[in-house]
Amino acid sequence: MPRTKKHPQRVSALAEGPANKKKMQVKGRVWIEKDNQTYLSWARVELLELIDQEGSVSAAARSMEMSYSHAWGLVKEMNRLAPDILVEKTTGGKGGGGARLTKAGKVAVAEFWKVVKGFQSWVSRQKMQGS
Amino acid sequence: MPRTKKHPQRVSALAEGPANKKKMQVKGRVWIEKDNQTYLSWARVELLELIDQEGSVSAAARSMEMSYSHAWGLVKEMNRLAPDILVEKTTGGKGGGGARLTKAGKVAVAEFWKVVKGFQSWVSRQKMQGS
Repeated sequence: MPRTKKHPQRVSALAEGPANKKKMQVKGRVWIEKDNQTYLSWARVELLELIDQEGSVSAAARSMEMSYSHAWGLVKEMNRLAPDILVEKTTGGKGGGGARLTKAGKVAVAEFWKVVKGFQSWVSRQKMQGS
Repeated sequence: MPRTKKHPQRVSALAEGPANKKKMQVKGRVWIEKDNQTYLSWARVELLELIDQEGSVSAAARSMEMSYSHAWGLVKEMNRLAPDILVEKTTGGKGGGGARLTKAGKVAVAEFWKVVKGFQSWVSRQKMQGS
């Protein structure tokens, strides 16, 4: 999924419709809850992708300018809510002590972006009259 | 538009999809911006409807448990952003000094709920696999 900004957690809208002549537009956001608790959001899924890319939670947190403890809190929360954990620790190898996405993690990321893409498509069709 | 709760400004989601067996569901919200400033949101439109119903900003604010100054701030902001003002003061008559929606205000309220209904319809079709 393309990143629209360097710091996606500061994005104020996940999707925005076309602006009319009066500069009015529909904006919106979507997220996924499990049992009424936030499970996957734009920022959380970006974090998952960065963990996969960087190979560690600390590097992922750094590149999002998020504190390590906050990032770990989010990962633990997602792992707790998921039927199968999304992020697992890796041991050994160069540097050791990293983390990576599980297969379930990759599936969750893909499903989230699928929902977001559908939502962006819906929003892009919303044209305001502008009164 | 039906109110889902007594205090709509505390609603955490404007729309939610069906929960799957794992209690996962898509949730989301939409709002309307003018020139990248919030113009109409669920709470703002509820306020407009209550002004129309109660005949004054103060009564509308009270019934939303919102401070008068906050409600007036929102009304002034919406009037400033709208091509034609949404709320006008009324004078004379019993009690005097009330407020009511203009025709543009009624049109804006209707357009907002139309967008929300479309969004709710879209969300209701989002079924999570739940990984």
